[in-house]
Amino acid sequence: MASRRDAPLFLGVDGGATKCRAVVTDAHGVVLGRGGSGPANAFQSFEQCIRSVADAAAKALADAQLGWEASRGLHACLGLAGVNLPIVHARVMQWSHPFADLVVATDLRVACIGAHRGEDGAVVIAGTGSCGYAIVDGRETFVGGHGFPPGDQGSGAWFGLEAVRHVLLAIDDLAEPTELTERVLAALQARDAPSLIEQLGEHAAAEYARLAPLVFAAADEGDEVATRIVRAGADYIGELARRLWAAKPPRLSLIGGLSEPLRRWLAADVVAMLSPALDPPELGSVRLAMQHWRGEHASWASGLP
Amino acid sequence: MASRRDAPLFLGVDGGATKCRAVVTDAHGVVLGRGGSGPANAFQSFEQCIRSVADAAAKALADAQLGWEASRGLHACLGLAGVNLPIVHARVMQWSHPFADLVVATDLRVACIGAHRGEDGAVVIAGTGSCGYAIVDGRETFVGGHGFPPGDQGSGAWFGLEAVRHVLLAIDDLAEPTELTERVLAALQARDAPSLIEQLGEHAAAEYARLAPLVFAAADEGDEVATRIVRAGADYIGELARRLWAAKPPRLSLIGGLSEPLRRWLAADVVAMLSPALDPPELGSVRLAMQHWRGEHASWASGLP
Repeated sequence: MASRRDAPLFLGVDGGATKCRAVVTDAHGVVLGRGGSGPANAFQSFEQCIRSVADAAAKALADAQLGWEASRGLHACLGLAGVNLPIVHARVMQWSHPFADLVVATDLRVACIGAHRGEDGAVVIAGTGSCGYAIVDGRETFVGGHGFPPGDQGSGAWFGLEAVRHVLLAIDDLAEPTELTERVLAALQARDAPSLIEQLGEHAAAEYARLAPLVFAAADEGDEVATRIVRAGADYIGELARRLWAAKPPRLSLIGGLSEPLRRWLAADVVAMLSPALDPPELGSVRLAMQHWRGEHASWASGLP
Repeated sequence: MASRRDAPLFLGVDGGATKCRAVVTDAHGVVLGRGGSGPANAFQSFEQCIRSVADAAAKALADAQLGWEASRGLHACLGLAGVNLPIVHARVMQWSHPFADLVVATDLRVACIGAHRGEDGAVVIAGTGSCGYAIVDGRETFVGGHGFPPGDQGSGAWFGLEAVRHVLLAIDDLAEPTELTERVLAALQARDAPSLIEQLGEHAAAEYARLAPLVFAAADEGDEVATRIVRAGADYIGELARRLWAAKPPRLSLIGGLSEPLRRWLAADVVAMLSPALDPPELGSVRLAMQHWRGEHASWASGLP
């Protein structure tokens, strides 16, 4: 236990629109504990994001049989949705965090570092949101990821929104109802447009995303509207992959909750680009925390400022 | 002044996603004062809606050279966006309002009563939101109006959202930029996707709607993307009109901030359906308050409960 107390500990966090995952590792990257919590999009709700991060970290510490006071010894990295916006990044950096030190990066960057174990590569993420990111020879490429509703085509939120749009048109007799119409209404226990809208709350990306599996299931069974929606979303995801591929990444991974259902809807040239992710995003986050710590440590050891 | 003190006074309110208008009239419907304020969508924000209603009412009273204490004598009708949802309607009715009595109706219904001076008719509203409503022989028809983003095609918010969607695709090199792309970026003083998204806030219907005139201007000058967006929106508005026309209303009016720019994009059969609105929605609201008051008054006068 003495060696464990002296050795540096790392916290890696992956925070997105729907959930937050944290791991605590030792200096060799061995996972000592894991924890999960709710939404951690720093743009959508800063307070909720910070709560989710602290909650997931506390759970990971407990899982590692460490108390909350051990947080002060953690070298932490947070990979968070929303911190691509400079004001959001600045706000997270101003958080009087409980850790030894803190690195903040986008959820995209830590996902990419995880997927390719720190080597050059690209990721397309299709979960509640959608986006693409590559890092090749130190040059980053970003594509998509502008948030819901104007961006994030091909994401869970987008699939759900498109399905609801069609249901509303069908309710108004402005489009033909299909099997999908009934399934969306049943899933939301809604009888009509007002009860449907009440169920969805106002603009909740995560609420819409919960409908995405249902859209894929209907498409797999040949539902015409679901097929049209899934094709359009998969086309966009394919475009993200092609754009990133132009940056010549050695590897490209499709990750996120919709990566599996999307696969059979992607064009052959896109499928041919894909390699499996090697580690999950939270371990990418740990890797970034370690890089940062080694950098600091080297500076200090060599007497540089 | 003595007669004015004794005679009943009426307050008519029209509250929508962007603004709230109030008028105070005498028993003959003569406007004594007008007032305007901010957003009053009871679904999107109940507190803000109530604030806007009270603010517009106070301004209308002041304009009529009456103090706020005169509110206790007002027979009021609020026509509010969002009260089509039963829980929202119930919440407004629970408001411990400062008026003599209160009728709450949808903004649609008071707009229709205003447009046709209480006679049967239909309205298609294209402003920040979009929707259609008809009342014929006591039977109401509702179409559209399900809120932004899943509904409200052809509304200001929708035109703005579609424009921003294209701008984001163009920024990502996934679509050809056009003149519209530059104009949207310039209007929002944005250089890139993050600054664009920051400017728009998260899902603000009114923010998007502010871009609508720019989309129409670009379409009128032949911009390809703007033309596609405006055509799709106008097609949906035309569909709303055709659906209402099937209920055989004696008159149909297209109202709201986009009614003028939309006109030249509507199909000929739709244009042929249109009659001008006779009164604005807030006077429709006054008319409903008067109907209610006369009903109450008649009951009292004849000794019925």
